[in-house]
Amino acid sequence: MQPKFPQDSITTLTDLVLPGETNPLNNLFGGELLARMDRAASITARRHSRRVCVTASVNHVAFNRAIPLGSVVTVESKVSRTFNTSMEIFIDVWIEDRESGIKNKANEAIYTFVAVDETGRPVPVPPIIPETDLEKQRYEAALRRKQLSLVLAGKMKPNEATELKALFTE
Amino acid sequence: MQPKFPQDSITTLTDLVLPGETNPLNNLFGGELLARMDRAASITARRHSRRVCVTASVNHVAFNRAIPLGSVVTVESKVSRTFNTSMEIFIDVWIEDRESGIKNKANEAIYTFVAVDETGRPVPVPPIIPETDLEKQRYEAALRRKQLSLVLAGKMKPNEATELKALFTE
Amino acid sequence: MQPKFPQDSITTLTDLVLPGETNPLNNLFGGELLARMDRAASITARRHSRRVCVTASVNHVAFNRAIPLGSVVTVESKVSRTFNTSMEIFIDVWIEDRESGIKNKANEAIYTFVAVDETGRPVPVPPIIPETDLEKQRYEAALRRKQLSLVLAGKMKPNEATELKALFTE
Amino acid sequence: MQPKFPQDSITTLTDLVLPGETNPLNNLFGGELLARMDRAASITARRHSRRVCVTASVNHVAFNRAIPLGSVVTVESKVSRTFNTSMEIFIDVWIEDRESGIKNKANEAIYTFVAVDETGRPVPVPPIIPETDLEKQRYEAALRRKQLSLVLAGKMKPNEATELKALFTE
Amino acid sequence: MQPKFPQDSITTLTDLVLPGETNPLNNLFGGELLARMDRAASITARRHSRRVCVTASVNHVAFNRAIPLGSVVTVESKVSRTFNTSMEIFIDVWIEDRESGIKNKANEAIYTFVAVDETGRPVPVPPIIPETDLEKQRYEAALRRKQLSLVLAGKMKPNEATELKALFTE
Amino acid sequence: MQPKFPQDSITTLTDLVLPGETNPLNNLFGGELLARMDRAASITARRHSRRVCVTASVNHVAFNRAIPLGSVVTVESKVSRTFNTSMEIFIDVWIEDRESGIKNKANEAIYTFVAVDETGRPVPVPPIIPETDLEKQRYEAALRRKQLSLVLAGKMKPNEATELKALFTE
Repeated sequence: MQPKFPQDSITTLTDLVLPGETNPLNNLFGGELLARMDRAASITARRHSRRVCVTASVNHVAFNRAIPLGSVVTVESKVSRTFNTSMEIFIDVWIEDRESGIKNKANEAIYTFVAVDETGRPVPVPPIIPETDLEKQRYEAALRRKQLSLVLAGKMKPNEATELKALFTE
Repeated sequence: MQPKFPQDSITTLTDLVLPGETNPLNNLFGGELLARMDRAASITARRHSRRVCVTASVNHVAFNRAIPLGSVVTVESKVSRTFNTSMEIFIDVWIEDRESGIKNKANEAIYTFVAVDETGRPVPVPPIIPETDLEKQRYEAALRRKQLSLVLAGKMKPNEATELKALFTE
Repeated sequence: MQPKFPQDSITTLTDLVLPGETNPLNNLFGGELLARMDRAASITARRHSRRVCVTASVNHVAFNRAIPLGSVVTVESKVSRTFNTSMEIFIDVWIEDRESGIKNKANEAIYTFVAVDETGRPVPVPPIIPETDLEKQRYEAALRRKQLSLVLAGKMKPNEATELKALFTE
Repeated sequence: MQPKFPQDSITTLTDLVLPGETNPLNNLFGGELLARMDRAASITARRHSRRVCVTASVNHVAFNRAIPLGSVVTVESKVSRTFNTSMEIFIDVWIEDRESGIKNKANEAIYTFVAVDETGRPVPVPPIIPETDLEKQRYEAALRRKQLSLVLAGKMKPNEATELKALFTE
Repeated sequence: MQPKFPQDSITTLTDLVLPGETNPLNNLFGGELLARMDRAASITARRHSRRVCVTASVNHVAFNRAIPLGSVVTVESKVSRTFNTSMEIFIDVWIEDRESGIKNKANEAIYTFVAVDETGRPVPVPPIIPETDLEKQRYEAALRRKQLSLVLAGKMKPNEATELKALFTE
Repeated sequence: MQPKFPQDSITTLTDLVLPGETNPLNNLFGGELLARMDRAASITARRHSRRVCVTASVNHVAFNRAIPLGSVVTVESKVSRTFNTSMEIFIDVWIEDRESGIKNKANEAIYTFVAVDETGRPVPVPPIIPETDLEKQRYEAALRRKQLSLVLAGKMKPNEATELKALFTE
């Protein structure tokens, strides 16, 4: 399959925080942010694979900064690495100061999607070629995350996780 | 005030059509699309003016193509022209074929926003400088639309609407 | 086809403004109002034609007055004119003072709907006979709006738009 | 206080059944209908009393007929009787056949609201004068329902419930 | 059919009150609470009968205590009595003080569900055997409520309502 | 501070999957499930700490089994371990077969919450004492997950992560 670049399937979802989407502290409700990230990431997965894609796991989400009512929030998702039938999607969330126009990073998250055929069976996806430094760095780290996830799920023995082993023993 | 370019405040809202957002024909419900366009356009108005902005009018929306359940929809909004305290925002809506990845134009719409201060009084906004051919063409037409809107609201006499008069009498 | 009167298909949607439907200024969110007007107008179109109807365009919406949280809002829609397969629907929006009970006009809007058969092809709708002065006045103006819309869309030459031409040249 | 008529505070909420409001059988979800009736009834209570009103109880709701996706539903609420600080509100729900235009009764419900002042204490409401036969009949029955509700809540002894006693002993 | 116990189908729905679910006084909107109770009760009915169940009526709901924004609300539903094809479901609603952890009763409600087969026809449900004192007390009272409902609907003559008659004549 | 047991703050949110909460394949939309888990977990965190709690991170979510429209879904959350001001919350998600009544595990997830005071500063939470075998096992694993999270965030050197190091070097 023809490899693709992260830029080919980048997805941008810029939207407001309305009162019906806040928690009792008047910040964007965590569950609503998780839902927006899931929608953006699923579009990226579909654009990369041109297949129906389903969420396989949420690997990590860090809520570093509360997002107040009325904010402009940008959710941007890109493929960070592919593994035969699955895609790791990296999501960056930014909020924007109205007066200065400056964007600040609020959160980031990592989701994994699987491409499936009409019968629901996993199908291969095109490889990804990282271009920028950040893309390359996330591509490298994705392999460690993959091994970690297999080890924690009991599907790989720790001493076979060569990438991780190196990390902890060197 | 320092003029700005349409590209400075362009806003992209790419999202899915989920079952809770459809009409009984399983297409995106018109009201939901109007709401998405309003949110994107209000972000563009805010980015251009760096002020609180309120919707003044919806000038025109053409629903040319139904948007089926499960579609990836991109709403893209740009300032087409400014008039002292108001901004005309032009919105293009695209749907994307999953298999080919080709985007097709589904709708377009024109909204007008006004920038206000803390007391709700209109305040001036920066001028806009159109760059591309399409931006220039929409910029020109915006004046005719403005005059038309004033004439229809009884706030301008038809024979003072020089742009329109030329259109119908030449 | 048997003509009908505007009163035959008038639709009234009176509802509250709840916190989940407001913008960050605690007024009814523009997108939510557009959605309510679309639902009321589509019911009017369906009642007039007894057909499935789809939104063809939003011709004009003026947001004259903010609608605060907790308001009682009445959306009232009526057929203002019919054109073979399409219907222009005029929508008035009122808010009601709780203590005095007085209703004030907050907004008005004009939508166009098309009646379709099972295969989605446009079908003729019954003619409309305006009765009150306001209905007659809106009926007259609808023809100018129709021509305008055709001219702006490039589907009619300005000098064929007899109604409009008269307006600007007399 | 000046008495009022049911017609003075009648509230009509006509709306569609959209896919996001259905149950797994593709009929209007019971909870959504209960919410629509609560909104309409609370507007009627507010219009009659010109006070803030809170739901005190739902006395009875009969779901006689399922309301399918895509239906036009009319919720109509009227004051059936007042008791010092409370109002019994009677709600009729109708669905409309698209082709024939015929309306059929789908459900009815009885809610009780209390008018309160700024501190939340109950305040008197104007008396109601029933006009039509149906209004008179519901007005009469309201007293039996009131006694019943007091008896069932242990706030009235059965043998003091004169209206009810007559019903069961004659 | 094998009898069951209320404990076999008890359903607990503990959830927050978020801003999008409040009324203008910042308390849980009555319609949203009615919807949550309907969902919990319908799960209890389904668990007891292992059939598709539809809401037949809401017999009574008392709103004794407002539920403020940010509360933790527990809706707990149990079968109180069965009648051939129908089940009376009793619902208790609790709110929880964050600091002390103490739960207070906020509301209670009674709904009736009917079990149906694939064609929508009512089918018998297993009998229920109340165990606790409260379950026994509600079981007894359910028969009076049932007769009352039949009398009020004109489906039973008052003097045949033996349970009720005793109540008012002893 | 007085230690507590997982059972003291267990939270159960049993609810239906309605059409407005599904994805285009008619299964529960991933974002909606993430939101439900966030609500249940935040209630558990609040019950354990009796403090305001904010989501700090989602550590892992595995979507093992699609949850079809109409399902009864139970989200159950318990504190798995505490670390001074933070709590790891383990969430199990079950779906229930209507006919047999058998519950099957659909997903599991791990979230971390922090307790804060009125100024938003983290405050200590009571320790937790695991009781069942599963609770003890999750308590042990939580320390490895904590170290892992610190290593991946660059806040701990791999060779200081004693628990993890042992895992990969033995």
